[in-house]
Amino acid sequence: MTFLSGLTPYFIAVFCVLVVGFWIQLQREKKPEEPTGETVSTSKARRWVDQDLQDDTEIPAKNDEDDDDDDHGSELDLPHVPYAPPRYPVASMLERSQDFYSLMNQRRSVRFISPEPVPREVIDNVIRTAGTAPSGAHTEPWTFVVVSDPDTKHEIRTIVEDEEEVNYRQRMGNKWVKDLARIRTTWVKEYLDVAPYLLLIFKQTYGIASGGKRKTHYYNEISVSVSCGILLAALQNVGLVTVTSTPLNCGPRLRVLLQRPANEKLLMLLPVGYPSHDATVPDLKRKPVEDIMVHI
Amino acid sequence: MTFLSGLTPYFIAVFCVLVVGFWIQLQREKKPEEPTGETVSTSKARRWVDQDLQDDTEIPAKNDEDDDDDDHGSELDLPHVPYAPPRYPVASMLERSQDFYSLMNQRRSVRFISPEPVPREVIDNVIRTAGTAPSGAHTEPWTFVVVSDPDTKHEIRTIVEDEEEVNYRQRMGNKWVKDLARIRTTWVKEYLDVAPYLLLIFKQTYGIASGGKRKTHYYNEISVSVSCGILLAALQNVGLVTVTSTPLNCGPRLRVLLQRPANEKLLMLLPVGYPSHDATVPDLKRKPVEDIMVHI
Repeated sequence: MTFLSGLTPYFIAVFCVLVVGFWIQLQREKKPEEPTGETVSTSKARRWVDQDLQDDTEIPAKNDEDDDDDDHGSELDLPHVPYAPPRYPVASMLERSQDFYSLMNQRRSVRFISPEPVPREVIDNVIRTAGTAPSGAHTEPWTFVVVSDPDTKHEIRTIVEDEEEVNYRQRMGNKWVKDLARIRTTWVKEYLDVAPYLLLIFKQTYGIASGGKRKTHYYNEISVSVSCGILLAALQNVGLVTVTSTPLNCGPRLRVLLQRPANEKLLMLLPVGYPSHDATVPDLKRKPVEDIMVHI
Repeated sequence: MTFLSGLTPYFIAVFCVLVVGFWIQLQREKKPEEPTGETVSTSKARRWVDQDLQDDTEIPAKNDEDDDDDDHGSELDLPHVPYAPPRYPVASMLERSQDFYSLMNQRRSVRFISPEPVPREVIDNVIRTAGTAPSGAHTEPWTFVVVSDPDTKHEIRTIVEDEEEVNYRQRMGNKWVKDLARIRTTWVKEYLDVAPYLLLIFKQTYGIASGGKRKTHYYNEISVSVSCGILLAALQNVGLVTVTSTPLNCGPRLRVLLQRPANEKLLMLLPVGYPSHDATVPDLKRKPVEDIMVHI
């Protein structure tokens, strides 16, 4: 009984939220013309394309008219639930913030990966962690393809090296090659064969609603990149290494190889494993915090 | 002496790397025409624009000819140093991967933020952690503006609410409004006044080299988004909450308000603090791992 009465405030809160939600829904149904009246014409509705957050979702799709999915109707006015995460005392917060910084600050992009096996369950947990990222309108527009099959890894290597050689030699000009020369990247990617896992991260540029209609994934590239940041933190947390690569022009061939649908586009390719015993990294420094932070 | 002789293999390794680097440099200087010969014409060099990794750095800038900075010459062939991060036993890896997943899985976007003060040093460590993210060609193209001044916070709120109201009412059409309605977002953002800190994250679309020339920041939006993912993990690790927002069309006004230079564009605005005591979140679920992961 004590347990139940302890929960009573929460029941009341949820009930109130439901009542308000129902009332709002009722008001909306009363005046169905108002929103369309304010939205004006289609050409005006297009004007919201933002100059600060360039994202390919903002490029009007050919079949954009199909986007008007009604599936969300049932998800409108989701009930709210109380949220009370653990709260740490100030001294503990400080220590945790320092420890996490120390851990993450040890992360480096590593191109020398050991072939030693890595427990699959660890990789699964890393992907689960990446899946906790926020996303535009909670679309969760990501697919993580985990490749451990040696033949598939080799095919991936062949595709990446083919395209990278063309990129380096013909497409990119002197400047990019110079920028990369300092970190000794070439188009030979031995680690793609050697690493026990390759993670290929695809962004879903749109989703398919239950009726087969397209459902826009707003800011999908930003969302998936944020997810990759959390994934990198999760890898570092277990002592695994990777190098964050965004293979130019390989996307379509890799998508076909991995049998991913047309709405998915490759964002990143991460070889994952333990660092090899003789791993080295370029002696780069990071900017001091004063150079990246401004306080007002 | 024992200490020094223990280091000898590293000295030899570094020496070898330096010798090879010097040799490569020598080879390059011998045939200065070869790279340009292979790069062919400027129009061909432009062909590398990638369809899979849309990023505004790939849109040729007006003054792109200025990009040919020579500053990296001195950074070419950086020496490599050994990299040996801590290695955890398998049982420990599994436990760490599970614990980190549990911690991150508790993260939610929270719009009810407490006005209680948060130690500044914790925020500094969170920004330091975000600054450990990888970035295209190690450009570190991010600026984190931390706002705690109440007047500036209020000015930010005014700008965001002005623009958001226009976005909601006129620009975005029914669909986006419907998508967001389920998570009860409106254009009233009280938390922008209430939260002890607002973090405004700017992407530097290009840098300024020492000679005043522009230096392209490749994939700056992806890099800064990855950094934001690590920042969100760092906030969650200390028990602070935020809501990841990408304010439409406010970028230019906020940039001017915060006196950021023209090469910086607003990517995200995060109000940060403890959750309020009566904080609630919509009762959303995340996709199960089977729906976001494919194993080959």
